[in-house]
Amino acid sequence: MQALDNFCRGSRANLAEFATHPRFTVHEIDLADEGPVTELVGRLHSQVPIDEVWHLAANSDIPAGIADPNVDLRDTFLTTFNVVNAMKVTGIPKILFASTSAIYGDLGATVLQEDVGPLFPISSYGAMKLASEGVISAAVESSLQQALIFRFPNVIGVPATHGVLLDFARKLRKDPMRLEVLGNGTQQKGYLHVSDLVDAMLHLRNSVTRKLDVFNIGAVDEGVSVRTIAEEMVALAAPQARLEFGTSSKGWVGDVPRFRYSVQKLLDTGWRPAMGSHLAMKRAMAEVAAQEGLL
Amino acid sequence: MQALDNFCRGSRANLAEFATHPRFTVHEIDLADEGPVTELVGRLHSQVPIDEVWHLAANSDIPAGIADPNVDLRDTFLTTFNVVNAMKVTGIPKILFASTSAIYGDLGATVLQEDVGPLFPISSYGAMKLASEGVISAAVESSLQQALIFRFPNVIGVPATHGVLLDFARKLRKDPMRLEVLGNGTQQKGYLHVSDLVDAMLHLRNSVTRKLDVFNIGAVDEGVSVRTIAEEMVALAAPQARLEFGTSSKGWVGDVPRFRYSVQKLLDTGWRPAMGSHLAMKRAMAEVAAQEGLL
Repeated sequence: MQALDNFCRGSRANLAEFATHPRFTVHEIDLADEGPVTELVGRLHSQVPIDEVWHLAANSDIPAGIADPNVDLRDTFLTTFNVVNAMKVTGIPKILFASTSAIYGDLGATVLQEDVGPLFPISSYGAMKLASEGVISAAVESSLQQALIFRFPNVIGVPATHGVLLDFARKLRKDPMRLEVLGNGTQQKGYLHVSDLVDAMLHLRNSVTRKLDVFNIGAVDEGVSVRTIAEEMVALAAPQARLEFGTSSKGWVGDVPRFRYSVQKLLDTGWRPAMGSHLAMKRAMAEVAAQEGLL
Repeated sequence: MQALDNFCRGSRANLAEFATHPRFTVHEIDLADEGPVTELVGRLHSQVPIDEVWHLAANSDIPAGIADPNVDLRDTFLTTFNVVNAMKVTGIPKILFASTSAIYGDLGATVLQEDVGPLFPISSYGAMKLASEGVISAAVESSLQQALIFRFPNVIGVPATHGVLLDFARKLRKDPMRLEVLGNGTQQKGYLHVSDLVDAMLHLRNSVTRKLDVFNIGAVDEGVSVRTIAEEMVALAAPQARLEFGTSSKGWVGDVPRFRYSVQKLLDTGWRPAMGSHLAMKRAMAEVAAQEGLL
């Protein structure tokens, strides 16, 4: 197994437990650089044929992409464009791709099944993931043998590089007497623990046979409000802290306050998550608090 | 009015009739080059404030984009990305954008209303137009005041730079005794004359008030088959020619053989085309034949 990463968010330390595995190699490369990617993928494929690519690289910080659209152009979109082209040139047949619920934008009360439209994302991140899906579907028509697209929900767990839990943990480490919450706390979302996400992808990878298919992956419940998360984080890590809420129902530009994300198609394949949103949140909260030295 | 073009498909001669208009200026620039675009748009806006941008620039040759995805990456997508960013930086409030029915991919018998999904384009061109729509919808959330997206059908008329009529005219000019048709001739599509397309866009521009809206623009009828087009072109320009059909129901990879394109939303605004598909085709056929020196 070959891993390609530029470590702009992750780190080699995260891979320490696999470092000595004889069939696992890490290559430090920026997937947004077309020439080097095509060259490296071609060289690796000529050494040991590559059957499938798991393309997970992307900017994962939505606000960062709002502030500078070039972040998502490069890290979210051009990474996909270059990986798909390298697969075409090299003849690698199968891609598994981490897309996102952010491609749906804000469709109000619409139940977000995989085939809803129109798709008008409200963040650069969502736009560049939608663009990536398009590049992949076009490549399926012309060269790829199979593409599975996974639309991720809010994923939690460690190592955490962004998200509400890390935000809260870092604020509390800096000032254990108060916790400022972006938005008014009513934002409610389903959360999936990263271990369940990996489990769902492997399940789909082993069971789906369609040439091009797409699955929402996410919690099967109504989710947890930001207020609940804030209260439980404070109780766990800084019982003295006072909660300070904002007034908006959105945490930031591009945030979707509440959405109805259907995972029925995934459930119909027989898969079930091991943890509901609240349990996933409680576990991830302890993990992130430990990661940040709060416990 | 400022026109920005790199003339990779059009030409300055096409603009001859406007060249002496005191309020019309042409700037030769490649919109795929971020820095120069931001600089030029900013400079023009500081001289005379720009109220709206009609972003029509794109690669229009779908097969060319299949052969080399970088064509659509640059000409179809990065042009949009850079124009939208320049508008953000400069503070231009309104964009009108030429998208395409190709974003729908091949949804089989599904009636293609503006809100269908999933959106899995089967060409690089469609993928990069879908990506462009996403960039625009994200920009509406963060900075633009209004965006109207027009999804174009098959547009015909002159000056023609690509398409079935030009293909046929050039083949017949080269060899007036035979006409090779890509595909088996059963592909059937609605066609809109470019004059009706412009009329529809101006109508929508003057009547739609929603912050973000999207309209299919196209013929209101079932369209014309490639066989009919071939037969009429031969009758018009090369009566001796023998027709030679292929065997596939698709003309090329990325071609969608038959699709049900709804323009009901456009009709509900009160607009009607002056010409049906067949009449538009007959007029454009004469125009293209004349352009190519066949008549």
